[in-house]
Amino acid sequence: MTLKFALLGAGRIGKVHARAISGNPDAELAFVADAVADAAKAISEQYGCRVSTIDEIAADPTVDAVIICTPTNTHADLIEKFAQAGKAIFCEKPVDLDVTRAEACLKVVRETGAKLMLGFQRRYDPHFSAVKKAITDGRIGDVEMIQIVSRDPGAPPMDYIKSSGGIFRDMTIHDFDMARFLLDEEPVTVYATASVLTDKAIKGVDFDSASVTLTTASGKHCTISNSRRATYGYDQRVEVHGSKGTVAVENQRPVTIDVATAEGFTRPALHDFFMTRYVEAYAAEIAALVSVVKGGASPSPSGEDGLRALVLADAAFRSAKQGVVVTL
Amino acid sequence: MTLKFALLGAGRIGKVHARAISGNPDAELAFVADAVADAAKAISEQYGCRVSTIDEIAADPTVDAVIICTPTNTHADLIEKFAQAGKAIFCEKPVDLDVTRAEACLKVVRETGAKLMLGFQRRYDPHFSAVKKAITDGRIGDVEMIQIVSRDPGAPPMDYIKSSGGIFRDMTIHDFDMARFLLDEEPVTVYATASVLTDKAIKGVDFDSASVTLTTASGKHCTISNSRRATYGYDQRVEVHGSKGTVAVENQRPVTIDVATAEGFTRPALHDFFMTRYVEAYAAEIAALVSVVKGGASPSPSGEDGLRALVLADAAFRSAKQGVVVTL
Amino acid sequence: MTLKFALLGAGRIGKVHARAISGNPDAELAFVADAVADAAKAISEQYGCRVSTIDEIAADPTVDAVIICTPTNTHADLIEKFAQAGKAIFCEKPVDLDVTRAEACLKVVRETGAKLMLGFQRRYDPHFSAVKKAITDGRIGDVEMIQIVSRDPGAPPMDYIKSSGGIFRDMTIHDFDMARFLLDEEPVTVYATASVLTDKAIKGVDFDSASVTLTTASGKHCTISNSRRATYGYDQRVEVHGSKGTVAVENQRPVTIDVATAEGFTRPALHDFFMTRYVEAYAAEIAALVSVVKGGASPSPSGEDGLRALVLADAAFRSAKQGVVVTL
Amino acid sequence: MTLKFALLGAGRIGKVHARAISGNPDAELAFVADAVADAAKAISEQYGCRVSTIDEIAADPTVDAVIICTPTNTHADLIEKFAQAGKAIFCEKPVDLDVTRAEACLKVVRETGAKLMLGFQRRYDPHFSAVKKAITDGRIGDVEMIQIVSRDPGAPPMDYIKSSGGIFRDMTIHDFDMARFLLDEEPVTVYATASVLTDKAIKGVDFDSASVTLTTASGKHCTISNSRRATYGYDQRVEVHGSKGTVAVENQRPVTIDVATAEGFTRPALHDFFMTRYVEAYAAEIAALVSVVKGGASPSPSGEDGLRALVLADAAFRSAKQGVVVTL
Repeated sequence: MTLKFALLGAGRIGKVHARAISGNPDAELAFVADAVADAAKAISEQYGCRVSTIDEIAADPTVDAVIICTPTNTHADLIEKFAQAGKAIFCEKPVDLDVTRAEACLKVVRETGAKLMLGFQRRYDPHFSAVKKAITDGRIGDVEMIQIVSRDPGAPPMDYIKSSGGIFRDMTIHDFDMARFLLDEEPVTVYATASVLTDKAIKGVDFDSASVTLTTASGKHCTISNSRRATYGYDQRVEVHGSKGTVAVENQRPVTIDVATAEGFTRPALHDFFMTRYVEAYAAEIAALVSVVKGGASPSPSGEDGLRALVLADAAFRSAKQGVVVTL
Repeated sequence: MTLKFALLGAGRIGKVHARAISGNPDAELAFVADAVADAAKAISEQYGCRVSTIDEIAADPTVDAVIICTPTNTHADLIEKFAQAGKAIFCEKPVDLDVTRAEACLKVVRETGAKLMLGFQRRYDPHFSAVKKAITDGRIGDVEMIQIVSRDPGAPPMDYIKSSGGIFRDMTIHDFDMARFLLDEEPVTVYATASVLTDKAIKGVDFDSASVTLTTASGKHCTISNSRRATYGYDQRVEVHGSKGTVAVENQRPVTIDVATAEGFTRPALHDFFMTRYVEAYAAEIAALVSVVKGGASPSPSGEDGLRALVLADAAFRSAKQGVVVTL
Repeated sequence: MTLKFALLGAGRIGKVHARAISGNPDAELAFVADAVADAAKAISEQYGCRVSTIDEIAADPTVDAVIICTPTNTHADLIEKFAQAGKAIFCEKPVDLDVTRAEACLKVVRETGAKLMLGFQRRYDPHFSAVKKAITDGRIGDVEMIQIVSRDPGAPPMDYIKSSGGIFRDMTIHDFDMARFLLDEEPVTVYATASVLTDKAIKGVDFDSASVTLTTASGKHCTISNSRRATYGYDQRVEVHGSKGTVAVENQRPVTIDVATAEGFTRPALHDFFMTRYVEAYAAEIAALVSVVKGGASPSPSGEDGLRALVLADAAFRSAKQGVVVTL
Repeated sequence: MTLKFALLGAGRIGKVHARAISGNPDAELAFVADAVADAAKAISEQYGCRVSTIDEIAADPTVDAVIICTPTNTHADLIEKFAQAGKAIFCEKPVDLDVTRAEACLKVVRETGAKLMLGFQRRYDPHFSAVKKAITDGRIGDVEMIQIVSRDPGAPPMDYIKSSGGIFRDMTIHDFDMARFLLDEEPVTVYATASVLTDKAIKGVDFDSASVTLTTASGKHCTISNSRRATYGYDQRVEVHGSKGTVAVENQRPVTIDVATAEGFTRPALHDFFMTRYVEAYAAEIAALVSVVKGGASPSPSGEDGLRALVLADAAFRSAKQGVVVTL
């Protein structure tokens, strides 16, 4: 049975999901809605789906699941609306930039029994999920220390930055989710330091460079290193050190040739950003969502996972602003 | 304008092309034909195309191009039929196992002015094509020596081997095309040695291990190393040594983690075979075919390229059988 | 002119320096002194030098330089003694575990004008010094963020740990020196968290796992990750992220083969510890010392460098103990 | 007991051995002889050994072993002289450029019972010997196919080339020895093709680019690829494919940093030549010689190994000249 999906929001990440849905044999992109008519039309033409509205989609009994890719400040309202409409929901992170609002929204989700999955796609990347599997398979023993390096090729536009909630809620939040995913234990302290190093225009608005350390009750550590600018491409690494060994994800590049000359050995730069780096992750994410909707699996990451990552982001922001260690 | 494709042959490689066509925004898989009804039906259901027959497809004016994935002994007849029907043609290698028959077929192609592209997909792999680009960009100077290593994970079934034309026409032929593609000069001598090392059952029927050396008039060399069995996956490498440097393709693996323990650092095995290793190549191949059909580009590899690779395969076979150097 | 060296302390690290001196064409190991007669004798026989005493060596006008490899609690006294005797001095880190005592000692060094070089050998490792050179050559632009990973294969004996001053003064101190060397700016805040993860017996005596973050006035960050146990060998990495790019040191292994089987691709473990990992660094360190003694070069790292690394270690210890960020 | 060595020939490779001997605790460089007085004097001063003559060394009962690094045309005579003098002999390859002369020389060695070890140092390189060990440990099963790539950074001076015996006897001979070492079975056919690609001045005198294929009676293959010019340094690789897997030696570089910029990821060039690449091999070679002289071990590679490599070189030369496959 093919599931019918509706896409809410036809922007950059909406397109990514439309492509992933169209490539899944058990999913069909049936509807698309966007405040910008042209954006919705483009998706409609490329994938042969109908342009619709949020209300129509909520009311349509044939719709199995919605993919929420609208602006962040609409997420909580839409989640609640579709939870009440009995649809399965996939929502891009975060539920809301405000923890209280997010909690209220998740209460509705619980009460309606709606299936909600959050968009931390890295959990579904074949390389990152292989790291998780190496851990659960016992190959490195007990997890002790984690290093996450996450660098964007370049900073987003200033408008985006202003409404993003800041680097910790916008960028590091993916690393917080990864940290929780791999630590398998909740962080109890957060230390963060952040500065503006890549673009002075960001000063006063946000940070562009951040280092974060999380610790857990049992004494595990996780350090996260973020920069908004990496000249060599989208840098996405994680390394987990355990009692029996270490497992690391290597960076991915679209072309893997090695050119040796008198100047040395040169391999090409990395992927240019998440749309190409995480193609397989987005596909696997939709496949996981299909499993959730069809019944068996429970959503991962859940709304609760999204909330906890947000709490860490808030703590990191406070730590960086005040120069203190925050205890949760 | 979306081009209408018909798929002839719904076996292993046919499925690969069906998937590539369905992922191309300018192509539509309209028809499928296969002697095995169930095979055609499976493709039909997965991609929403019609089951048809070769004659209907040839007669249908809406069909722009055919993809020939039928058994080798039908290739030349089908190419001629569809050339005469005025369709663009993509045919899996080889045109025919017999050089004379292949030449006759290509004569028909020339006379009809049909567009014929051969299925040496490696030319379209992003890594191999980056090697070609590094050469044409002058990064390694003049090409001098090439090493190609090509090892399959395991030997095909004995039935397949028996009708395959032997390792040189079936497996090495891809390497001969790559050699010609990168040398940019025709080989004039061929030396090959071959033996049965991986499976004694192959003895008397074919070889499973082969080393080939090609030389050109200007003194360039190319060595090819083939084995039908590599325990660690599908091994596909090429290295080109030039006057200013060397360019090499690294092997691809589906998962790139590195696990370090007391036993050392372990990365996972390579792709299991061409269907996963060359996903991007098959997609790019179809995109190239679309460009050919739409008008601008000339087919690469052409029918002539297929013929020349076959001539090298025949020479290699004679060299290996007789223990002599064959001059072309 | 060959310089005459005297070695004070014939233990593990003393042997390393004896070997480095014997391999230097401008240096001669003339004397060795050790409280343990057999240890001194072993060095004497292997390198053909005389067993002597500290007082004799200080009084001998032919001695150009001394290498202090005695227990830490003797360092400051010996540095002062040999500074007053007019010898060039190389001393293993630290000058003293107590900052006040170290400052008093360095005052004597300044007053006597003695040449004092501290034993942070990593600065002389060809790989780490190539990182420094890449930075000063401008290849990565302005330094922004540094990651140092430093893991020992296994914890030292409990007796050693007890008198070592703790992980920050004993192990991380090398990383603090490397951080200062590469940041080229003094840290102004120190955050450290530490725990006992590898061996419960260490609990209450010391930590075995530590994460440290340093920040500078201009907003640069450096994170350090330490563990006393790495099953796969001596893990020594650094990565410097700058405005134009990133430079990283790869780990070294004594044997670099890659074995591919059905289980994957396996490379051997890393070096077993500093004696084999830093052979070239120790040789280059002695060569640098020769240059210092012969006149031109100023000692690097200096006694002042040693002091500053110690101050960072003390701050890290306080941060880890009290769970606060320490401002210097 | 320290063994007394005499060095015959104080040129480039003589210096390499002098250094290796001086670093071996069981060996002492006691004498050096060279037709060029200054060359002998330089070694004498650096290592504190006596300048002597060939006759004196042969007559001196305290000399345990001689290291022959004189011009090739003196090797056979010197081996015979020192065999008759009862010394252990290490001789740089080849015994002689003429097989008949080499055979006569080895006859004398056998009759005198002299211990003779040939200078194919790669067998003692830690990386190549780890490949051999991986094979004998059964990690890759039965050896099937070998690829050797061996490229020099640049061609030697024309004078050297003229008296070298040609690329096969001078350069490929090391690869022939490695092939025999790893195949563990004698080659029965040799095919070689060679050309002048790197420097036209070599034309008519020698080749600078060669591809060789060896086969054994059981059907194993070995291909060798040689070039006299590699802009990126001294390229020394081998890969052995077996029934259970493959083992490969990675290239060595003196500095292993990786610089990532917008242009990609760049690692430095390889070693500049054998003097730096094979430092550890030369040291291990002397250690092996010490074991041979002290009694237990039999020389590896032996004089017979040297002869067999020379026979392969002669066959390759004939194959390349005449364009035929040579059967041994």
